[in-house]
Amino acid sequence: MHTKFEHMSVAYTALNNLDSSNGGRKGNDASHHLMRDWRRQLRTPPTYRLGNRTFRIHYHVALLCICFGALILVFLFLKHDSQSSYSNKRKWYVQYEQTTKKESEYNYTYPLTAAVINNGVQTYRIGMIADLDKASEDPQKGNVWRSYLKMGYLSYNPSLNTVEVSFNDNENPTEYSGSYSLKGRGMELSELVTFNGRMLTFDDRTGLVFELKDKKALPWILLMDGQGNTGKGFKSEWATVKDEVLYVGSMGKEWTTSAGDFESFDPMYVKAITISGEVHHLNWIENYQSLRRALGIEWPGYLLHESATWSPINRKWYFLPRRCSKERYNETKDELMGCNKLISADENFHKIETVQLGPYKPTFGFSSFKFIPGSNDNVIVAILSEEFNGKTATHLTVFTIDGKTLLGPIKIKTDYKYEGIEFF
Amino acid sequence: MHTKFEHMSVAYTALNNLDSSNGGRKGNDASHHLMRDWRRQLRTPPTYRLGNRTFRIHYHVALLCICFGALILVFLFLKHDSQSSYSNKRKWYVQYEQTTKKESEYNYTYPLTAAVINNGVQTYRIGMIADLDKASEDPQKGNVWRSYLKMGYLSYNPSLNTVEVSFNDNENPTEYSGSYSLKGRGMELSELVTFNGRMLTFDDRTGLVFELKDKKALPWILLMDGQGNTGKGFKSEWATVKDEVLYVGSMGKEWTTSAGDFESFDPMYVKAITISGEVHHLNWIENYQSLRRALGIEWPGYLLHESATWSPINRKWYFLPRRCSKERYNETKDELMGCNKLISADENFHKIETVQLGPYKPTFGFSSFKFIPGSNDNVIVAILSEEFNGKTATHLTVFTIDGKTLLGPIKIKTDYKYEGIEFF
Repeated sequence: MHTKFEHMSVAYTALNNLDSSNGGRKGNDASHHLMRDWRRQLRTPPTYRLGNRTFRIHYHVALLCICFGALILVFLFLKHDSQSSYSNKRKWYVQYEQTTKKESEYNYTYPLTAAVINNGVQTYRIGMIADLDKASEDPQKGNVWRSYLKMGYLSYNPSLNTVEVSFNDNENPTEYSGSYSLKGRGMELSELVTFNGRMLTFDDRTGLVFELKDKKALPWILLMDGQGNTGKGFKSEWATVKDEVLYVGSMGKEWTTSAGDFESFDPMYVKAITISGEVHHLNWIENYQSLRRALGIEWPGYLLHESATWSPINRKWYFLPRRCSKERYNETKDELMGCNKLISADENFHKIETVQLGPYKPTFGFSSFKFIPGSNDNVIVAILSEEFNGKTATHLTVFTIDGKTLLGPIKIKTDYKYEGIEFF
Repeated sequence: MHTKFEHMSVAYTALNNLDSSNGGRKGNDASHHLMRDWRRQLRTPPTYRLGNRTFRIHYHVALLCICFGALILVFLFLKHDSQSSYSNKRKWYVQYEQTTKKESEYNYTYPLTAAVINNGVQTYRIGMIADLDKASEDPQKGNVWRSYLKMGYLSYNPSLNTVEVSFNDNENPTEYSGSYSLKGRGMELSELVTFNGRMLTFDDRTGLVFELKDKKALPWILLMDGQGNTGKGFKSEWATVKDEVLYVGSMGKEWTTSAGDFESFDPMYVKAITISGEVHHLNWIENYQSLRRALGIEWPGYLLHESATWSPINRKWYFLPRRCSKERYNETKDELMGCNKLISADENFHKIETVQLGPYKPTFGFSSFKFIPGSNDNVIVAILSEEFNGKTATHLTVFTIDGKTLLGPIKIKTDYKYEGIEFF
């Protein structure tokens, strides 16, 4: 690099020497004849005929410009290089690695199983993951917690805008078990999302993120609550992917006592996770407050979120709040605060729009949704779960982002409360 | 680099052209007078007198070279830019972050508390962390596991090469508790290390890495066994920092049944962790085998590691194996296979040296060591733990990297088995 630089400054100096030699044409020494002649020529711009235009090119100036440009490039290049030296320093150990996958390339496969297309009807595999709460613990085996994955099919006809969903009710859902727990609870799985070609699911007790693979739930990373400096696992409720980064959110409301008194902003943090497992703790207090305001709600009123999806096609965030309440939180009243709104926000939460859905029973609340892959992010499949007087149920519904219902809500034949849905 | 090379070969080609243009001066059209004149001048290299040397610079060639060089720079710059665009894409969300620390700068503070220097004697705070195995579970409170940190002082006199260690035996060690567990076990802490200005400790059951802060153990990341695709936590036994990357290792021997039959290479993987919590799974099978061979040991003989430290001053890895055995693994015999060797290896494990230590009782085994900060990485403080017939004890010793004992082994007054030592 230095060589180039010095080389150019030598050329530049030579030009200055040229200038300073103005009016120095008195010598008549024969040995300088050629040189003087040449200098005069440089000072008198040569004329070219090109088509019918006459160009006067000043070589003096041209040379200067080129040298200057080259110098700036060298400078920029060196600057850029020094900035990335830090990350280069860290890179070497990756070379050590014996694993085969290209770690740095995002796998955009979605859904993981290709749709079957028949007469224009697209049929997808879908799956729902259960959150059994305290019942997750295996009553027989010690230190084992379980969740269930129920698989089915969703058929979408884009020309008729119709959707059919079917589950094989004779088939038992697949059991996923694990032995990690926090305060004696674990495997309370609340969401499903495809990230970098992997099927991920989230324990809202331990904060663990699992990959579902080969019929096993493999722990990948651990998410801690709030800004991360706590002993409490993150209460993961929703997850979505935006620009190769996984976003995992919680309830999006202030943590309060069961009587509604403020305790912390921890559930208003969002985790941004890279494909290599780096976790960043984002403060989303203002984003969540903007969503509230869009429904005319202010603290101590609240929205309670369990679902959110970024649409890369519409470049918008979409939310289906589980609860909307203009009143302060109250544990028993909360069960009747079901919300019938689809909220969308631009990338920076400046422009927020709401669409009326339903109507649904006030005990229903959204827990997860996804865009139907072939719908150009226009059609949403969502699950509504019901928790009332200690009993739970799950319903499924399909609607457009304009609020037009295409299917349901239909009751899923199950004893479990499903909290995550994804295309498989 | 390529630029320079090509740049030079272009200059060389241009010089050849010069030669071939000799004797091409015949045009006489008046309208082209200036132009021809100028061309001729360019073809006839001008002469400069500089000192008493004569330089002939061909501007035609110089222009070409500069343009070409500039083009190549533009090309390199754009190429470089496109390579880093991927990582730039990921950077934006970091801007979102509300946390105050500069995340990308390594904190080199070590030890975290400055030494007190008195008459040339350096006095440091040291701490040891306990692994209570199954006794970690709190018998009173449900779902709570505990470990203990014992603090003391180490005084080092560099001129006399003497060391003194003191613990306040009236002071109870600090209790650290947690509620994460794997199969009902947790907080079995096995190592202490300062990384990026944080005091980290490692649970050899759950695979959790904690930061000790404000008298609390805060879970930071989770390490899974082997290549990471398992439900089992990594059995972290040693940890050290090399070039801003945290290395965490396990026993460094094949996983076998209690009778010594091979089961997997999982404990021969090492975790390389960046300050932002990215975990890479390194295959260290060959490295560990090289260490074995240096002691004339081949499978099914084994070394069992619980300690390792990278020396940035000596640019070497240091190991104090807990066990050395030329025979296959046997659970009861293993307790008598204590090892009295210091092994060092260069960065790539090509050159390996061993130093004889002790002698120690055959039931003693190293569990952790650190270089004394002011010793220029020449003096090691190490703890030896003893597990025999169900009883445990901890001893501390200090020696030089040449194998000269400066202190101990002295018995620590404690009921606990300490497995990690670090300067605080």
